[in-house]
Formats: sequence, structure tokens, C-alpha cells
Amino acid sequence: MAKGGQASTADLDAAMQIALAAADSARGFTSPNPPVGAVILAADGTIAGVGMTQPPGGPHAEVVALDEAGDAARGGTAVVTLEPCNHQGRTGPCSQALIDAGVSAVVYAVGDPNPEASGGAATLMRAGISVTAGLRAPEVEAGPLRAWLHKQRTGRPHITWKYAASLDGRSAAEDGTSQWITGPQARARVHAQRAQIDAIVVGTGTVFADDPWLTARQPTGELAAHQPVRVVVGKREIPSTASVLDDTAPTLVLNTDNIDEVVEALGEYTDVLLEGGPRLAGAFLAAGYVDVIEAYIAPILLGAGASALVDAGVHTITDAHRFRLESAVTIGPDILLSLVPESSAPGNEE
Amino acid sequence: MAKGGQASTADLDAAMQIALAAADSARGFTSPNPPVGAVILAADGTIAGVGMTQPPGGPHAEVVALDEAGDAARGGTAVVTLEPCNHQGRTGPCSQALIDAGVSAVVYAVGDPNPEASGGAATLMRAGISVTAGLRAPEVEAGPLRAWLHKQRTGRPHITWKYAASLDGRSAAEDGTSQWITGPQARARVHAQRAQIDAIVVGTGTVFADDPWLTARQPTGELAAHQPVRVVVGKREIPSTASVLDDTAPTLVLNTDNIDEVVEALGEYTDVLLEGGPRLAGAFLAAGYVDVIEAYIAPILLGAGASALVDAGVHTITDAHRFRLESAVTIGPDILLSLVPESSAPGNEE
Repeated sequence: MAKGGQASTADLDAAMQIALAAADSARGFTSPNPPVGAVILAADGTIAGVGMTQPPGGPHAEVVALDEAGDAARGGTAVVTLEPCNHQGRTGPCSQALIDAGVSAVVYAVGDPNPEASGGAATLMRAGISVTAGLRAPEVEAGPLRAWLHKQRTGRPHITWKYAASLDGRSAAEDGTSQWITGPQARARVHAQRAQIDAIVVGTGTVFADDPWLTARQPTGELAAHQPVRVVVGKREIPSTASVLDDTAPTLVLNTDNIDEVVEALGEYTDVLLEGGPRLAGAFLAAGYVDVIEAYIAPILLGAGASALVDAGVHTITDAHRFRLESAVTIGPDILLSLVPESSAPGNEE
Repeated sequence: MAKGGQASTADLDAAMQIALAAADSARGFTSPNPPVGAVILAADGTIAGVGMTQPPGGPHAEVVALDEAGDAARGGTAVVTLEPCNHQGRTGPCSQALIDAGVSAVVYAVGDPNPEASGGAATLMRAGISVTAGLRAPEVEAGPLRAWLHKQRTGRPHITWKYAASLDGRSAAEDGTSQWITGPQARARVHAQRAQIDAIVVGTGTVFADDPWLTARQPTGELAAHQPVRVVVGKREIPSTASVLDDTAPTLVLNTDNIDEVVEALGEYTDVLLEGGPRLAGAFLAAGYVDVIEAYIAPILLGAGASALVDAGVHTITDAHRFRLESAVTIGPDILLSLVPESSAPGNEE
């Protein structure tokens, strides 16, 4: 807390980190709206309110945080992961709500690229509010807003290809066994991730081979509060008894192997997880639709068995799909490599 | 530097780091002796001498450091990566040299497991010298002394399997092209590593496919001062014009595919680098002879092409060769994963 009744740089930075965590916790529940976090600091720099985007139709993050802050917002600072919106949607514009609450400063991370909603900063400044942009923007762009920003910029869903393989790139042993290549920590992380995304995509081959549920489960085994839409792609008809057709979550069956058609059919989603198998991943890669790769590499060697990726449209080494390593972290005994297309600049996937 | 004429804990730690670096710089030149580093601190804690093991027949690290220190060693401290030897080989015992030089304390990292040479610490203590063991022992065991300690404990050379592959585990594209999967930084590191090892092993398939020289080159293109012995394994006869048979370094051709015979034939070496191909690596893995894996993973995807590993004796997932990730570092655009067999405790490969 700063002396003299004003938020210090350290206060603002700490508040943005809290806003980031709040935004993260809203992932999976806000689509098509972005998961945003907001913190209201009172005039003396103390935290007066924290909010995150509520499900569609509910209030935005700023309004939740202002509600909690009440009169303490007057003369205070709003710290938000995204530029406050300026448009009258199902909820009123957040810029007006901040003006009405009497905040004297707004600090946000990332500007709103959506022409309908943008202009919030200008509105706030016209009302005499001090506005600062860019605080922790790289973390926000690479974090909770990544998929949404991608969709705003390209009109396409953000597609993460996630796979698990041995160190030598195999997803199963020679006899087809694969449970479990990666450890329980990696599997728990995948379930947590499923609980934060809009849709999960597999090929019919995966349904026939593994009969997966594709649900998001908590470590206790219980279903998570949010379940992604399950999407099965391919021309083979899957049996009506397939686990993926049960009633835990909606399932979309796309009877095509044209990847452009698949991506178009996913148009209403923002954050999509592609889970396999190797041939479907190859088709997405060949078509240039993989925005992030999350490779769970188990420290085991097989020397035989199905490859994690086939038919990616590469004949010679100069045509290889080139990515850039964004991070490498250990998850239990395994290592998780995150990569983005080589042409991507940090925080800008295009 | 400590006050009162004695080496402080910080002095000792700094000296051991210098000794470690000195030992590293001797790698490749000392076999069958271990690459050891030594620092002599004068009585006031200042550095009076630094030494490293000289090529066979030359003096050990302690003697080199004592020579440099001269009279300044009297009342000082010797900091050594390995317990000073106690035996009369081609050179006199280092323990006696330290006693003769009048040092009042010896600090070393790792005890000597060799029954012929050990006992140095006891000899020093009987002479009234203060002896401390274990300083930075994990770094020394995992670093310059790793291969030598392995050989002392098992009687077998220490074998590092090094390979480069795409993220999906392929060492070449569909049409056989592979230059270069990894970037120049990774290739430079491999050449630096070759200059520090005793022998480099490939299968005849690699000779036919790539016709490699298997020499160690400096970044300028010049040959490094030390060249490993080149070893070619397999029953196919390689052409007399093969690059590996040129006169830059000795070459050993082992006309067998029995891996036990190969490892026995490598018996005079300590630090061996296995560079491929996939089938030879599979045979070494299946026989349990891979002590460290160094996997250079390029952030590219191929989806077709030769696998980096085949025929490793694994049919089902529960028979997978299990390793433990020891480190993951980025080398230019690539990532280098170092792994040891799962049963290994840190600093003890057995």
C-alpha cells in the first residue's frame, strides 16, 4: 500500500496479477465473451473489489468488482486485463459504469481489438479519468485472452493441438497399449484444461481405438462444472454406443474429412482443443490451423508403435512445419513443451 | 578473502567452482585417468595455484597446482574435485605431495572409489592435515567425473546416447533429407562434446546413409585438439573410401551386431558417445547399456520419415525403457533433454 492515498506501481502490479488470476478462473464459462479479470483499488491503494466476467448475459468483470467495492471505488483505480468495453450489449458499457462509480484512474493490460466494443479508453479519458495501457500485456495476451484475441483478429477459433508421446514420438507401444504414457500429473492437467475450453476435437479413429469420454473430470473423479462440446471428425460412422455420445456433454459429429469444413463448423467456438489422433492432427497442421502445440513428452522409449503424427503434408526437410518453443515445464515425470508457429511474434499468433 | 589468514567458506566454495572448471577443461585428455581440478589457497585465502590432470604420464592436478603455488602453499588449503590419490603410479601419490608442501587443510568433492588409489584422505589426516569431503559433490559427480566414476563402479564405459529428432521423433523427412534438423548452436555443442570424449560409436547404416567424418571441429571449421576414436559397428562391410576411415583420427571397425561384444571391445574407453543410427541405439537400449540420453529435439514436425529409434526390444507399454529427466535446456531454437535410467539416483548411475 502506498502512502498519501494513491496506488503505487507495486500496488498496480500486484492488482494486475490478481486480475489475471481472476480472469483465468473464468475461462470456459464466458464464451463468446472474453474471460476478463478486474480489481478495484480504493484511493489509498488497498483492494476494494475483485471481479471476473460472468457467464453470457451476466455482468462483466469491472461491474462485479465495482459492486463489491461500492463507495470505496470513488477516487480509486480500476485495474483490468482488457480495455473496458464501450458498447451497449446485453449489459451496459463498462466505461460508463467506471465513470459513474467515480474512479480516478483505469489501468488495463490489452486494448480491445473488437471495433464494436473498443473506444472505452477514449470515453474514460474524455471523462477526465487517467488511463494507462499495457501493464503485464504479454502475460494476458499469452494467457486468458489468447484464444479470444486470436478469434477477434482472424475470425477463426484458436486451436491447440495437445498430444502425449514417448521421447521417440510414439503414442502407443507395438501392441497398441498406451495407458498410460504420461503420468497422473499430466493427465490431471489435461482434465483441468478441458474444463476451460469450448470444444474438444478428435477423429473417428480415436473413438474406435480408445472409446474416450472426452469429459473434464476433477481429481476426485467427479465431472467438472464446465464441459466442452465434444466434436468427432471423420467419414466412418461411429457406433451409437460410443462413450463420446453419452449425455454428459453435447457432441457434434462432423461427417467430413475436409479440414476447412471442420474449422468452419467450429466457427461459433473460441478456444478449441485438438486431441488426436495422429492423422487428424496431420491434416490440421498441413492446413495451417494449429495455433499452439502442447506436447506432453514422457521420458520413456518404445522404438516401435504408432507415431503421434502422420500425414502432415511434409515430403522433404525444407517443408517441415516449423514452430518456436514458448515454454518447457516439467509435470511430474513428464515434460510439457508449448510451441507456436515460427512466424508468430510473442503475444501475436498471426 | 577471509580475515585472519584462513580460507572462509565462500573462499572454499569459489575455489571448488574454479577446480570444477579446470577439471572440465581437461576432459578428453586424461583417459584412463580422471579429469580432476585442484586449487591451492594460500594461508590468507587467496588463490596461489590452479591445476588440472595432465595427459597420461604427466602430473596430477594437485601437483600442477602445488607447483604454481610454490611456498605459498605452506599453511594453505588444497581444494580438489577428487580425493587425492594415495598410490605410486607413473607419478607419486598426491597425498604425499600435499604433505610435503605443508598445506594445513584439504577439501575435496568426491571420494576415490578405486581401491588402489583410495586412502589419500586417511594418509592426509594421519599427517595432521584437516580433511573435509563432499563440497559440491553432486556437481562433480554429474559433471567431469561422471564417466570415470561409472567405469570405476561398473567396469564398463559410460555410454551417452545422443540423437537429434523432430518433435515427432523423426531423424529425417520422408525423402531421407535431414540436414539440418537441429540448428547451428546444437551442432556446435555436439562438436565440443566430441572433443571431450574417448570414443564415438555409429552403426554401418549411418556410414552408408550419411558418410560422416565423426570428427570434432571448432566453430572455425578447424579440427579440435582432441579427436575421439571412431567406432563403426555392424556386419556390412563399409567402403574403404568412407570418410570415417580417413586419417584424422583412429577408427575401430567392429564386425559384429552382438552388443555385449561391442561393449567389451570398448573396454579400454571411459567416456563413449553413441551417435546412431536408430537400430544400433535400439540394441544398446535393449541391452541396458545407455547411461545417459541426450535428445536434441528440434521444434519442427514431419509426420513421415525415419524414426530416431527402432527395435528397442519393447512390445508392450509396460516394457518401455523408462528414464528420468535430469535437465532441459534450450540450445538456440532447439531443446536438449538429458535423461538417466529411471532407477538412477542423482549422482549415482547404478
